[in-house]
Amino acid sequence: MIVVLKENPNPEQLESLINWLKGKGLEVHESLGTSRMILGLVGDTSKLDMDLIAALDIVEDVKRVQEPYKKANRKFHPNDTIVKVGDTQIGGGTLTLMAGPCSVENEEQIVAVAKAVKAAGATVLRGGAFKPRTSPYSFQGLGADGLRLLELAKEETGLPIVTEIMDASQLPLMKNVDIIQVGARNMQNFNLLKILGAQDKPVMIKRGMCATYEEWLMSAEYVMAEGNQNVILCERGIRTYETYTRNTLDISAVPVLRKLTHLPIVVDPSHACGKASLVPPLAVAAVAAGADGLIIEVHNDPEHALSDGPQSIRPEVFEKLVKKMTAIHDFISDMED
Amino acid sequence: MIVVLKENPNPEQLESLINWLKGKGLEVHESLGTSRMILGLVGDTSKLDMDLIAALDIVEDVKRVQEPYKKANRKFHPNDTIVKVGDTQIGGGTLTLMAGPCSVENEEQIVAVAKAVKAAGATVLRGGAFKPRTSPYSFQGLGADGLRLLELAKEETGLPIVTEIMDASQLPLMKNVDIIQVGARNMQNFNLLKILGAQDKPVMIKRGMCATYEEWLMSAEYVMAEGNQNVILCERGIRTYETYTRNTLDISAVPVLRKLTHLPIVVDPSHACGKASLVPPLAVAAVAAGADGLIIEVHNDPEHALSDGPQSIRPEVFEKLVKKMTAIHDFISDMED
Amino acid sequence: MIVVLKENPNPEQLESLINWLKGKGLEVHESLGTSRMILGLVGDTSKLDMDLIAALDIVEDVKRVQEPYKKANRKFHPNDTIVKVGDTQIGGGTLTLMAGPCSVENEEQIVAVAKAVKAAGATVLRGGAFKPRTSPYSFQGLGADGLRLLELAKEETGLPIVTEIMDASQLPLMKNVDIIQVGARNMQNFNLLKILGAQDKPVMIKRGMCATYEEWLMSAEYVMAEGNQNVILCERGIRTYETYTRNTLDISAVPVLRKLTHLPIVVDPSHACGKASLVPPLAVAAVAAGADGLIIEVHNDPEHALSDGPQSIRPEVFEKLVKKMTAIHDFISDMED
Amino acid sequence: MIVVLKENPNPEQLESLINWLKGKGLEVHESLGTSRMILGLVGDTSKLDMDLIAALDIVEDVKRVQEPYKKANRKFHPNDTIVKVGDTQIGGGTLTLMAGPCSVENEEQIVAVAKAVKAAGATVLRGGAFKPRTSPYSFQGLGADGLRLLELAKEETGLPIVTEIMDASQLPLMKNVDIIQVGARNMQNFNLLKILGAQDKPVMIKRGMCATYEEWLMSAEYVMAEGNQNVILCERGIRTYETYTRNTLDISAVPVLRKLTHLPIVVDPSHACGKASLVPPLAVAAVAAGADGLIIEVHNDPEHALSDGPQSIRPEVFEKLVKKMTAIHDFISDMED
Repeated sequence: MIVVLKENPNPEQLESLINWLKGKGLEVHESLGTSRMILGLVGDTSKLDMDLIAALDIVEDVKRVQEPYKKANRKFHPNDTIVKVGDTQIGGGTLTLMAGPCSVENEEQIVAVAKAVKAAGATVLRGGAFKPRTSPYSFQGLGADGLRLLELAKEETGLPIVTEIMDASQLPLMKNVDIIQVGARNMQNFNLLKILGAQDKPVMIKRGMCATYEEWLMSAEYVMAEGNQNVILCERGIRTYETYTRNTLDISAVPVLRKLTHLPIVVDPSHACGKASLVPPLAVAAVAAGADGLIIEVHNDPEHALSDGPQSIRPEVFEKLVKKMTAIHDFISDMED
Repeated sequence: MIVVLKENPNPEQLESLINWLKGKGLEVHESLGTSRMILGLVGDTSKLDMDLIAALDIVEDVKRVQEPYKKANRKFHPNDTIVKVGDTQIGGGTLTLMAGPCSVENEEQIVAVAKAVKAAGATVLRGGAFKPRTSPYSFQGLGADGLRLLELAKEETGLPIVTEIMDASQLPLMKNVDIIQVGARNMQNFNLLKILGAQDKPVMIKRGMCATYEEWLMSAEYVMAEGNQNVILCERGIRTYETYTRNTLDISAVPVLRKLTHLPIVVDPSHACGKASLVPPLAVAAVAAGADGLIIEVHNDPEHALSDGPQSIRPEVFEKLVKKMTAIHDFISDMED
Repeated sequence: MIVVLKENPNPEQLESLINWLKGKGLEVHESLGTSRMILGLVGDTSKLDMDLIAALDIVEDVKRVQEPYKKANRKFHPNDTIVKVGDTQIGGGTLTLMAGPCSVENEEQIVAVAKAVKAAGATVLRGGAFKPRTSPYSFQGLGADGLRLLELAKEETGLPIVTEIMDASQLPLMKNVDIIQVGARNMQNFNLLKILGAQDKPVMIKRGMCATYEEWLMSAEYVMAEGNQNVILCERGIRTYETYTRNTLDISAVPVLRKLTHLPIVVDPSHACGKASLVPPLAVAAVAAGADGLIIEVHNDPEHALSDGPQSIRPEVFEKLVKKMTAIHDFISDMED
Repeated sequence: MIVVLKENPNPEQLESLINWLKGKGLEVHESLGTSRMILGLVGDTSKLDMDLIAALDIVEDVKRVQEPYKKANRKFHPNDTIVKVGDTQIGGGTLTLMAGPCSVENEEQIVAVAKAVKAAGATVLRGGAFKPRTSPYSFQGLGADGLRLLELAKEETGLPIVTEIMDASQLPLMKNVDIIQVGARNMQNFNLLKILGAQDKPVMIKRGMCATYEEWLMSAEYVMAEGNQNVILCERGIRTYETYTRNTLDISAVPVLRKLTHLPIVVDPSHACGKASLVPPLAVAAVAAGADGLIIEVHNDPEHALSDGPQSIRPEVFEKLVKKMTAIHDFISDMED
């Protein structure tokens, strides 16, 4: 961490700051220039509150050199984290395909879609029981009934399930869920993250609508700091000024996170673009960029889907897409050898 | 609502859509052009799920004409909502000044600041007991103890208190809180909003970091739809590409919301800019733009504040600022007469 | 185009508006509801000034149904535009690789890089002679001398060249340039676009830093309206709140533009991310998403590049990347058959 | 400037870097930590190319401490710049009101508006002759004829005129123009900025649609580096995800620029919001925030304006607004004494 001091800092305040920093176990290197002095802090600054220092009268600016996340940081954990779910694994060079409807609607629908995506090659079933909707007047999901139907589909197909939690009170209902998803709107619901960190099911954290990579990794850190290391990150598009697509898929997140963290990275092209016709090219691009997995909305009857119909693809489109994605993943893996 | 159809829509699907819409109690006006057909829907479309319609094969696009919020909409409730808190009121032409430290730290601090801001003219005391922090390693607030200290300061000064709730589990602790604040990161925590709608304390909803006006009003609608009409909106800056300020204060939110809604509008210049020196000019600008109130971070010792020190102003700065704000508010109110 | 009227519009003003619209050759369909009236305009509205209508007292809002661009619109020109440059072509299912240094620095450098990228498989040489730099104190490019060196490299290798124009006054110097590039900062320099539309060299328009797809296509329309149909679009990342990467590559631009326009789409991963290590995964993703070409910064000595060194890759990295890109392009083309 | 080195930098490369920096007249302070080394550079780094250093193999990151602009920097020029135009001045504690139509349309219109805004209290007449329009099919301004009409209005009223230049070729036509405006889309048209820096008419630079404060000040620096110190900055709203307003007025720009630069700061509420009803509250807020001036679109017949009608206010609205703005400006100036 670098502390840039204002011109002519009060010598007593300066001494007091330096002593306080040393008291935190840090080495302090002073660099005195013609018009300005800089302090270089050496040691573990991840638990140092930048705001505290920036508030001092004699301080002009504070800049981080080290990342503020430790457990999620690849520097300290060079090997890929591999999250195991049922017979499948996420991370470590494999390509995991999660698919299913946005919302669980009824038994027939969820079982039919589950069978279809399994046949096409998906190894995890997605489906929403609790749905965050902008309007209180929109369909809010089937809730506990939806979870029961997901369990049914799991029994029928053997596919592990991933579903969204909106509130800690829903956790006891999720005993048979395999991966708990934290939605974009809850990425910084810190109480929820702590509770999910204190249990051991894998947690997939979607990127907040305007979250930076660092904030996103800090949300992973919240879960990991409580003990649960099974965290998956899911890029689902960010909000920009462009409104043609629902969000803007930030494809760079894949190689950037690969460098910054050891956690697996999944891409959700469906929510990123909001249009079924764009899902296949974006999914293929995500595989090419190196994603560990994809989560894709598939519906057997998108026109009558109770939510997010426009971005769901049909099973037959998914089937063709899986072939393409798998082939490209294999092809790239081979070239890397 | 306007439904733009694709070219040469299938006649049966079209008939089925029109009948379905009519079944919802809507009038459907068809407008057939050279290359494209448009349906104009007349009636209450606020409870119609746009996504459902947009998903249809024959539909190219759906555009709203009417706002999707009803209870928060000024069109249906032309008179200003006035929220009463203790001896003070928010909305309806008054200027409410809320002030206090970002975090409650100890009894001495909160009581001293409470007395100082009261003496300067504040009528509501702010203070955080539960603090949403990006890092799990930063100070997380005093929690229940902090609430107890806030209550103490309320007893000492008579000032009603506003504090942030981060999770529904904290609600029972907030019996003596006067206004419950929903933070920017929880603006779309819909479960929390519903619970706050089912109780009757006033709720102040901060704008999400990248929330549109409409999404923000829909969050108010969540609370109001459950029965609680005492909602206050708080603009606290939005995230943009500019990083010099912590966020970008969207001053237009004040006159825009004035037009769209009858709910009171409060501005938080402290979080918007993140720098103490910018707070006074932005606060004065917010008053000039017509805000119903301000919420300002004041700390008797910003350099040793445990959070957000850099954006807190000292009591003596606040005192001068209150004089300026009050004078400008009176001046503008007089001119309007 | 849809015109939403205010409640109870003045009947005379309404009649006058309807007559004016009919005078423009449009059919006007009225849709009268309980609280609001809507006019549906049918015909060619691309030359209608929305602002004029929106300014009317009786008008609440105006919404476009049709795109405002015609010549760039795939609806009216279903076949891909193929731009021919030297022996190579851009668009129509091929993959064009443009590569070279950010800035031309000296003869040795540009000739060496040109030979290297040609050997690796590039078919167009890029290189900047006029450089738009944020600071007046940074290196501004070699100007006319740089163009001369580019011509030399073209003679040596036979590669056609693409270079940026910053001002119409530079056009006479560009006789031997094969593709004229309009930079992101000049995307809405309408005078320059008109001048480039009145000559016949191919023009590659980079997307403005915060340009929408529509604005970008309208800039293409400016060139095409003057007669030059040889326009190439280049996605180079947009500005968002995320600062880890220089810009945010909007990979969705590729499939979106493919649908909206018949013009070829090139991706510049180098400027999009600003970091050499991210260039290969993003380049491969762009190919997988369906780009017609890539423009990549390659430098034989990135550490001593006079501009944009951090985002330039070395020739040997480029060579490996070309193999990967070409293989994926062929693979996808085969699957499509 | 701070250079953060990668772990275990090559000693020879490090020595070579340090020598090169010293050769640029900088002092180099080394700060060696447990895992990382930092170089603190002391001296004038404004002319140092950050990119060059960041490209080095041994460098992880480069961070600026000093601002890259010098001539526009208040640190080196503590006194406010006052730009004199005719009998009026901009900056230094006064409030300058510029008003007029978006586009000059005909003699009657421009003279009538000029008289009206003068009578209301404006001291500068605005009016566009060359209009940057997104669509090539929209009205592009009257060009040279428009300038002639502006001159006529100037003769009739004595008001100095401000108008936009879109291309250097228009400069010879602007002999009688008093302030030359550079539009948002041309903020980084560096060739145009250099040409305007080499003449001596005051230049008003509008902020680019997604320009940072620093980029904006660097554009001012381009003009000033060529010799012309009469630069005015104009905030006109930035592009964000919010689409209700045309742009998002960044009111913080006023106090931020006041601190960073000595140049006068003008606010354009008309383009910022795009809606006439929002202009008065935003204009008043800008005055309260400390702006040196405002530029406001006024039209005697907004409904028939040929461009930007929806955001133009009528002369009678402007007249009332001037009274309010002037009173608030005087009131604040008095309080500051």
